[in-house]
Amino acid sequence: MEEKLQELKTRLGEIKNLEAAANVLEWDQMTYMPPGGTAARAEQLATLRKMAHALLVSDEIGRLLEELQAEAADLDYDSDEASLVRVTARDYERERKIPAWLVAEMVKAAALAQEAWVQARAESNYPHFQPHLRKIVDLNIQMAEALGYKDRLYDALLDLFEPEMKTAQVARIFDELKAELVPLVRAIAEKGDAVDDAILYRDYDEEKQWAFGLEVLRQMGFDFKRGRQDKSAHPFTTSFSINDVRLTTRVYCNQFKTALFGSIHEGGHALYEQAISLALERTPLCEGASLGVHESQSRLWENVVGRSRGFWTFCFPRLKEFFHEQLDGVDLEAFYKAINKVEPSMIRVEADEVTYNLHIFLRFEIENDMLEGKVQLSDLPEAWNAKMKAYLGIVPTNDAEGVLQDVHWSLGSLGYFPTYALGTLLSVQFYNQALADIPEIPAQIERGEFASLRNWLKEHIYVHGKKFTPAELAKRVTGFELSARPFVEYVRAKYGDIYGL
Amino acid sequence: MEEKLQELKTRLGEIKNLEAAANVLEWDQMTYMPPGGTAARAEQLATLRKMAHALLVSDEIGRLLEELQAEAADLDYDSDEASLVRVTARDYERERKIPAWLVAEMVKAAALAQEAWVQARAESNYPHFQPHLRKIVDLNIQMAEALGYKDRLYDALLDLFEPEMKTAQVARIFDELKAELVPLVRAIAEKGDAVDDAILYRDYDEEKQWAFGLEVLRQMGFDFKRGRQDKSAHPFTTSFSINDVRLTTRVYCNQFKTALFGSIHEGGHALYEQAISLALERTPLCEGASLGVHESQSRLWENVVGRSRGFWTFCFPRLKEFFHEQLDGVDLEAFYKAINKVEPSMIRVEADEVTYNLHIFLRFEIENDMLEGKVQLSDLPEAWNAKMKAYLGIVPTNDAEGVLQDVHWSLGSLGYFPTYALGTLLSVQFYNQALADIPEIPAQIERGEFASLRNWLKEHIYVHGKKFTPAELAKRVTGFELSARPFVEYVRAKYGDIYGL
Repeated sequence: MEEKLQELKTRLGEIKNLEAAANVLEWDQMTYMPPGGTAARAEQLATLRKMAHALLVSDEIGRLLEELQAEAADLDYDSDEASLVRVTARDYERERKIPAWLVAEMVKAAALAQEAWVQARAESNYPHFQPHLRKIVDLNIQMAEALGYKDRLYDALLDLFEPEMKTAQVARIFDELKAELVPLVRAIAEKGDAVDDAILYRDYDEEKQWAFGLEVLRQMGFDFKRGRQDKSAHPFTTSFSINDVRLTTRVYCNQFKTALFGSIHEGGHALYEQAISLALERTPLCEGASLGVHESQSRLWENVVGRSRGFWTFCFPRLKEFFHEQLDGVDLEAFYKAINKVEPSMIRVEADEVTYNLHIFLRFEIENDMLEGKVQLSDLPEAWNAKMKAYLGIVPTNDAEGVLQDVHWSLGSLGYFPTYALGTLLSVQFYNQALADIPEIPAQIERGEFASLRNWLKEHIYVHGKKFTPAELAKRVTGFELSARPFVEYVRAKYGDIYGL
Repeated sequence: MEEKLQELKTRLGEIKNLEAAANVLEWDQMTYMPPGGTAARAEQLATLRKMAHALLVSDEIGRLLEELQAEAADLDYDSDEASLVRVTARDYERERKIPAWLVAEMVKAAALAQEAWVQARAESNYPHFQPHLRKIVDLNIQMAEALGYKDRLYDALLDLFEPEMKTAQVARIFDELKAELVPLVRAIAEKGDAVDDAILYRDYDEEKQWAFGLEVLRQMGFDFKRGRQDKSAHPFTTSFSINDVRLTTRVYCNQFKTALFGSIHEGGHALYEQAISLALERTPLCEGASLGVHESQSRLWENVVGRSRGFWTFCFPRLKEFFHEQLDGVDLEAFYKAINKVEPSMIRVEADEVTYNLHIFLRFEIENDMLEGKVQLSDLPEAWNAKMKAYLGIVPTNDAEGVLQDVHWSLGSLGYFPTYALGTLLSVQFYNQALADIPEIPAQIERGEFASLRNWLKEHIYVHGKKFTPAELAKRVTGFELSARPFVEYVRAKYGDIYGL
């Protein structure tokens, strides 16, 4: 068995090397690449992705997995070896189901759709994008049919991002959450005057913002010997190795929150990537458990920690040293409230902690309706606006800030959005468990000490990489499955306090 | 034939995509990669290089080339198609001769040798490096035997960097050059006081140096929409596409020449890469004709143009705007002489235009002696120092600034050094032809107009990529083969003037 396992690891290592190379190319594209590089970069990425895919679905890997699956039955479920065989077999079987022509069609359709989307959004011209969306939806239906599903088409697509999560479970959780959040947002809106965040839109020198962000990342425990932060139009985190993790943020002089909370958010993703067990390096297990679990870490650090009173008890005096003029006369409480201001808005990525999930429910429902033919694509803007009205009480004035705002569909992805909300729920569920295990954490955070929280997360979540499904992980770490309850209690308490509800 | 050519191009395009990806990874490693990334990066590069090599030496490419070679016989020698088949067949046959075990051995030996070299140089401890050099030399002998040669072992290795150049020709040219340069350097040394370059070691703000360098690159015609400049420990140029060319430089506050002449030198390489015919993109022809021809362009721009009186007639007033304090009271003539100061020194990469080649002769002779067993490796430091004394009139005080100074051998490369000197010779030979064709060039340069020189170089050299061998190119462009004569006349005139000889 040892020999076969070694052969599997060697082959998977080469695939991982190709994927890491593709990640470097994408990172460069988003950070430093001159505009002229676009066309060649697309070709280079296509070659790398194609070769990685061809190597994975090869008959040799299939044969090795088949032999190893039988032999691994005796191994401990949690062991690196059993997990490698189990998870790789799952990926292999899934990838084998997707016909090559469908992948090629999707790549082609997405390239055209993206171009059309950029133009359509610039002109707020949904009809220009609609035929491309039609193509993307049709290909996703064919993808779902190829992958197979028991209950809903959406199950097959969701599974690509959140292994073994089902649409029905998501719908149940979202309904529960909706029943709480919609009235809460209304109640907060009525007390809108309680929080003023004008101080966040003063002039904050960009270089100082950058320096402060680096200081916060260092304090959180991000290891700059094994990673770095750069600038990009849209913040993201990527990894080329456990020892080379890159995050990005963007800096606007008049919008203080953007750079810093971008850094903390991506810093959460990055802490995860930097702390995966070294034994999993260069294997398919060397990544997060799912997009949702990954997002739980960015949200945990950005919101649960980074927007807490305790965090700023430590950080605010230091921030005032950087920006004494801008924050002159501002006290901790006013600052804490400002960074937690809740306000229904059109754009998902700019939404606060409470309204954010409402944007997700809308997209989840619309994606299902599109796949199942319950909405005509020509009616999509109206469907979008109606849900905005129902959930957030506001209506987009045009389609650019409505149905055209997100890039995801133009990239060919349906089924991705729920992971943002699932991550938000998990962030509180995990954090509560950390507090139960180590009650000193809040006091430590007030002193700028993040090591025991970070180590708890590392031990319970990060080291395992992709060994366990999100459901397995939630159960192992917190004793119960993914639930909306902890998040609901968290927002009730936090925003009840801030808005005096 | 069209169909087979298309198949060949598709296969070669994938190889080129893998190589471009490797270039991106290497660029990142030299510019932004955190130290932790080293180990994984080596693995990723190994996978990319291995796959590119395997694809090139595949039987399918062999079969296509064989069929196409017969059919291409009717095509114009200069055509893209005939050139592609001819040059690819040459590369293919060469690569097929190198056994896989030898490549693997070389990679392993070089990895160990590099580590040993870093330590040996730091401690100035040649015996620590000697056994690794033994291994490298032995593997190079085996490489030469595998590749085959008619006359000298060195021919086979030189051919890897300078296609179809022969050792005997290099030796003849170097001897001619040596007879001129050794006495010239002595004559200049006797007039050492004639030039004072102390002004170049004043405090020059690093950010201003950077900004000035960008301005000069822009003026030269480097297209920043299709490339960029970054910082790295050792300046280099690389290319991921004709439309994405990256150069680097380094900036020292107290050494004005380093950043700027680094930029201009790499800018010369970069202009070449940006101006290869778009029809050659993603083929093996999409690179310089050879290392020597590439170096001819970096030297042409750095020295022949960038260290000329005419260039600074235009640039010096602008430089004074950047550094009015540092250059207060300095006139153009004093500055021109300072940047052209000739002084025998220990380190090749810091040498001026006149003494530089002497460093190369020494290395060329020692490499041949090592390969042919004419020098015992234990005697190498003495052999090195004796040649330094003979050619430059100075002797290293230790092996770190002597035999251990260059990285090349530790990387496994023998046969590379001559290309630096061949490039220097070609730079003047090409430039003279440009002047013969367009006599207005010097006057244009004095006005900061580089377009007609650049376009001449583009038309005669750059567009052709790797279609022609260096010998073919020299003959086509200048009407005669590579010669030391133009360079000798150039240095005699230029330095006779500066030093009043």
